[in-house]
Order: sequence, then C-alpha cells, then structure tokens
Amino acid sequence: MKKSLENVREKCPLVHCITNYVTVNDVANALLAIGGSPIMADDIEETSDITSICNALVINIGTLNQRTIPAMFDAGKTASQLGHPVVLDPVGAGASALRTKTALEIMEKVKPQVIRGNISEIKTLACGSGFTSGVDAAEQDAVTEENLDTAVAFVKEFAKNTGAVIAVTGKIDLVSDAEKCYIIRNGAAQMSRITGTGCQLSAICAAFAAANPDDMCTAVAAAVCAMGYAGQLGVLKMDQKDGNCALRGYIIDALYNMTGDKLSQGAKYEIR
Amino acid sequence: MKKSLENVREKCPLVHCITNYVTVNDVANALLAIGGSPIMADDIEETSDITSICNALVINIGTLNQRTIPAMFDAGKTASQLGHPVVLDPVGAGASALRTKTALEIMEKVKPQVIRGNISEIKTLACGSGFTSGVDAAEQDAVTEENLDTAVAFVKEFAKNTGAVIAVTGKIDLVSDAEKCYIIRNGAAQMSRITGTGCQLSAICAAFAAANPDDMCTAVAAAVCAMGYAGQLGVLKMDQKDGNCALRGYIIDALYNMTGDKLSQGAKYEIR
Amino acid sequence: MKKSLENVREKCPLVHCITNYVTVNDVANALLAIGGSPIMADDIEETSDITSICNALVINIGTLNQRTIPAMFDAGKTASQLGHPVVLDPVGAGASALRTKTALEIMEKVKPQVIRGNISEIKTLACGSGFTSGVDAAEQDAVTEENLDTAVAFVKEFAKNTGAVIAVTGKIDLVSDAEKCYIIRNGAAQMSRITGTGCQLSAICAAFAAANPDDMCTAVAAAVCAMGYAGQLGVLKMDQKDGNCALRGYIIDALYNMTGDKLSQGAKYEIR
Repeated sequence: MKKSLENVREKCPLVHCITNYVTVNDVANALLAIGGSPIMADDIEETSDITSICNALVINIGTLNQRTIPAMFDAGKTASQLGHPVVLDPVGAGASALRTKTALEIMEKVKPQVIRGNISEIKTLACGSGFTSGVDAAEQDAVTEENLDTAVAFVKEFAKNTGAVIAVTGKIDLVSDAEKCYIIRNGAAQMSRITGTGCQLSAICAAFAAANPDDMCTAVAAAVCAMGYAGQLGVLKMDQKDGNCALRGYIIDALYNMTGDKLSQGAKYEIR
Repeated sequence: MKKSLENVREKCPLVHCITNYVTVNDVANALLAIGGSPIMADDIEETSDITSICNALVINIGTLNQRTIPAMFDAGKTASQLGHPVVLDPVGAGASALRTKTALEIMEKVKPQVIRGNISEIKTLACGSGFTSGVDAAEQDAVTEENLDTAVAFVKEFAKNTGAVIAVTGKIDLVSDAEKCYIIRNGAAQMSRITGTGCQLSAICAAFAAANPDDMCTAVAAAVCAMGYAGQLGVLKMDQKDGNCALRGYIIDALYNMTGDKLSQGAKYEIR
Repeated sequence: MKKSLENVREKCPLVHCITNYVTVNDVANALLAIGGSPIMADDIEETSDITSICNALVINIGTLNQRTIPAMFDAGKTASQLGHPVVLDPVGAGASALRTKTALEIMEKVKPQVIRGNISEIKTLACGSGFTSGVDAAEQDAVTEENLDTAVAFVKEFAKNTGAVIAVTGKIDLVSDAEKCYIIRNGAAQMSRITGTGCQLSAICAAFAAANPDDMCTAVAAAVCAMGYAGQLGVLKMDQKDGNCALRGYIIDALYNMTGDKLSQGAKYEIR
C-alpha cells in the first residue's frame, strides 16, 4: 500500500476525467491532493487528443448526456489503444435505463481495467438485479458481516467475467480481481452525507492504477484504503459546529497530507 | 416549523435537481445537510426515469441551454403526473429573453407547486416589470419595511393567480399562498456575497414540500427560515480572516446541525 | 494598485463568465469576494442578452464544447461592439487541437483586451511552440530569474502583436502591454496544488479591467498581485492538518478581506 501511494506521488499521473458536473471540482482537488494531476475534457472533438497526453482515464456517468456519451466511448477507445488504464464509475446505474445501458456498453466496448461503484450499481451491471436509491446504494443490497462470504464470491466472479478489478464501496469495501479480494474496513458513516466521495475515489483509483501498472488490484485497494482512512481522519477533526461541508474539505486535506507510512498504519484490511 | 424539518429528516426525500452547474455541488451538499438526498440528471433520455424514482423535482434555470430546456419540461410533466411537488427557481428571469420565456412556459405547462426567486425575478414573471442586476435583485425592486404591505399583497395575488406557493427572498423574505403570507426576518446581509444560497434554498424547498405535502406553505416557510437562520449562525461563526468562502461552508454545516428545536427557536417570522 | 482595487469595490462590475464547469463555483465566489458580481451563461440563445447587461466578459476555454464555442464568439462580438473588456483564458491551449484552434480564432475575431494564461499556453498562442502538461505549464517553458529578460521581451512583443494586455502567470508573473512589463513575485508554490486559481484570476482580471478602463495594464497587474498576495496570506493561515482544500478557501477569503492598503503593502513587483 505504501509503495502504491508513493508511486502516485512520484509519477504524478495526468488523469483525463470525463465526469459529472456535480462533483467535478472536488474530483480535481482530490486528484491534486493525492499527487496526481487532472484534466477535464468531454467534447468528442478533443477527447482523443486529451487522452493521448494523459496516463489514465476515468469515465464517470453521473450527468451523462447525448453530447458526452460519444466522447466517453471515443476517449475509452483511445486509452485502450494506448494501454492506459480506464476506470469506470457507473454512477446511478439502475436509476435510469440510459445509465444502465451506457455503463454496460462501456464495459463491453472499452473493457475498463477498473470498475468502482456502490453495491447496487455493481449488482445492476453484474446481474441486472440491483436495487437503487438514486445515486446511493439501497439498504437491501448492502454488504454486511453476515453476507460477506457471498459478497466476496460475487465480486470475484464479476472480476473474473469482466477481466477488471472491481471495487465495491460502502460500509465494508471490497476490491477484487479474479483471484483475491481485499476486504476493507476503513471509512466513516458520515461520508455518505457528502456528495462526491465516490467520484473522487474513482479518479484517485485511475491515478493509482496508472502509477502501479504491475499490480492494479493492490493499487486500487490502496486507493480505497486511502480514501476511507482520510474519511476517518476527517471525522476525527470535526468539531461540534462542523457538518458535511467541513468534513468534505477535511477529507481532501487528509489526502493531501497522506504519506505512504500513514497509509500503511491506517489501512485496515484483510485478503481472502 | 419544527415538524416540517423533522419530517424531512425522517422521510429523507430524494430530490431530482435540474440545476445550474455553478452552484450544483453546494445544492447537493445542502440537500444532504438538511436530510434529503440529491440526484442530478438533465438529459431528456433519462429525465422521466429519474423523476419517477424521486419524491420531488427542482427546476433551476441558471445556465439553462437548448439541451436541458426540453429535459426541464419532460421532467416537470412526469413529476406532475406522479403528483410530486415541483419547485421552479427562475434564476435570472428578466436578464435574458430566453430565461424569461422559459420560466413563463414552465409556469404555464408544468404548473409548479412552489416558485422561489428574488423580487426582481418574481416581478418579471408576475408582471413583466422587474428590474434586474443579472442574477441578483435590483435595489429598486427590494422589499422593505416601507413597502411591505404592497409587497405582501403582490405576492398573495401572484400566489392566487399561479396556484403556487411563492417564496420571495431578500432582506425580508415573503412566503405566501393565496390566503396567508409569512414575513420572515432571518438571514444576513453577507449571504449576498456568496453564490448559490438561493439555489440551495430552492432545492431544500423541494425536500420540505415533498416531506410535508399537507401544508406546503408552512413547509416552504420553514425551509426559508432554516436557510436564513443557518446564514445567521454562519455569520456568527466567522472570525476576522474568514470571508465568503468560509461562510458558504458554515451555512451548509449549520443546516447539517439544524434540529427542529433549534429552528423553532431561531425562526423569526410573522403571518399576515 | 490601491486605486485599481478600490475602483472594483466601488463599481462592482457585473462579469459575464463563459467558463469551465470544473472551477465555476470558485470563479463566482472569487468575483464576489473581490467586489464584482458574476453571471454565468453559455447558450447562444442568451449570450448576447447577458453580455449586454454586463460590464465585462471572460471567455475561459476549459471544458469548451461544440455547444459553447459559438456562444463564446457571439458573446465576444457583442462585448466588443459595446466596448466591454474581454478577457481570454486559453486553458489547455496546446493540449488539444480544438483548444489551440479555438483560442487562436477568439484572438483573431474577438480581439480580447486581456489574455491570461500560463507560459505554455501563451507560447502556444504566440508561436505554436509551447510544451504542455495538460492544463499546467511544462517545466521547460517556465519563466525563471535566468531567462527573465527573454521572457519579458517575448511577452511585450506578444502584447504588441495582439494589442492586448498579456498576463503570464507562474512562479514569476508577467503582465505587459507593448510598452512596459510588470514583473510580479507574489504567489506561493502551493497554489499549483489547487484547481482553479488561474480561472479565478482571469475572471478577476475582467472585473479589474472593467473598473479601470483607462489603465488596463496596471489594473491587470493589480489583479495578479491581489491573487498572488491572497495566495501568500492563505498559505500563512494553513496549519499542519490543512491541505489544498483549506487553502483554496483561505485564498478566496483573503480576496474578500483585501483592501487597497493591504494590496499596496503586499504587492511585490517591478516594472521593466
């Protein structure tokens, strides 16, 4: 984990983000905080130029539209040809037919190296059966200590079928390739009261994947631990009058101050 | 007022926001802070799907464009058919022909349950005669202690003509249906130096309306008091080096920490 | 410099911003902080209406697209006809053919009064030879104490050829018309770890230019000093746990609290 983060800080990967306009500013600052560099571009006339000068691509389908969807495919194709890691964040898959269909098509045509979403989104993509609460996971779908074995098996299977590293985030996070699954218990409940921690994490995953091409599963697990641990540090910093807006800033600041050593100490995971 | 807020926290309404990209992140965090849940979607291919899984819709015409305008109508129509409250925020009505025309058409075709704007925007919609200073109200239009009776009569009349709850916000806020008018004296002058408190309020009004279908006028008044009181608490928290960016965060955090009891104590209003 | 800022606070220029969706919220809050007023509008159906009620226009090509590019030209044409200052921020010129081409066309057809960018962007526009690191300047291009004379000559020449005030920002900032060049040593290295300080500055330059039509070069230099000095004050305020997100807020807050006297004391520049 330590080395994964240090590689990000050393290589400073430039990440092309096609991402929603709700959380885009936090995505950019979170990437800068962790040691990467963001560039946002979503018009098909420039996506392949921009992808070419970058080291990774994140496709986030929140606020997708008829203009940006073709750009997602175009950028994805270019990134694949260049061997850049592509991260798919299927925001709200299951909440609309357009989102579900677009996410499935991106999986099929772009073959992203990493897919990160909440459990409802991932279930929707894996078997068309996720519940949804808009852009949040439905409680019925939640990964818990009780259903953990089943959830791990499900995620490994989906990783195998897609050839991607799968990151399912929630109270318990799972990061898996076909062989192994990281079970991560970082994070804090209050993070669900902030918009955009998931989007930030997906972009950070792209930076970690780009900086650690030889072991993307560990790199993505490190990114998930970093985000979750930053959330814990953020909550610790909160005082009585602070709320979700203060916490949002504390988390990005904790990413900014995260070192390989801190991450090693704070990361809380097991591998199955 | 207490009950109105408590209903929001209990029911956690999912609010479909078609809103401008300037303040969208703050809108999302403000909704989460007050106990609602946001989803942003503005493409016509998914608007009716998204509206269907939500409890309310807010249409904010800041940064409207040819792609999003049809989505506003489509979402509005779907929400109306489903009986979901629709809030219209006519940002900058009067500042361009496109904004004025679009707002008037939304009023006519969608018949929103709530319209929230500054006095210049509301005057533009009511009688085509508002002044404008871009997205801020013009001083000539301001509601003051001197013209209060006239202003109250005007807002009641507009509420009657539209069948909507009208919320006019400024130094003095007015919230009215055809029968009664809340005159609200919460808020702080410094709020006008932050972008987006109006947009946040409109989205919060949607959450309050959805959680309190039996008395939307009181619910909207409670939302206006909550936002204004949060502004006062935010100003109280400011130190010498703080500015509008700190205040912006303090206000959202004050919404996060707002309880029914605090709101009851802090709300400052009379009914005429 | 003092007078330039005081004019902004007194006249409160309304600035029409066609700007990217990544940093747009910070742009709006920074404009409000410095004493201006923002309005964002990027649809061609309303751009000329909006431009007409404003005092200045900033065209920022980050996240440009096929829908907004025609609006940039339309707004630019209207602003020129009305004699409003136009600021061009060629974000990422050199990073894609679309950005380079669009920026060059805006220069040719709109003839902006002010062009503000990093050295790689400006070199790309001046001679097609800038390097690029996405939206950041490439190290090979950097203005340093060693190459300062050459850089000053280059910027003066470009100002002469374009008829615009040129502001090149980086470790050392240069602001020049054909006659003289301000060499500015405000700012702090940590600002490069925040997204959007450049975008904010471009919008602020528009406010300064509008409020100081008789000496735009000094006005733009004052804006650059104000932003850089705010950056220094922001860094001074940082504690051990703060990161780029805290700093981002401190800078806008420092702009909010900036006075003519503070700016006079803090501005660090020479004229060549």
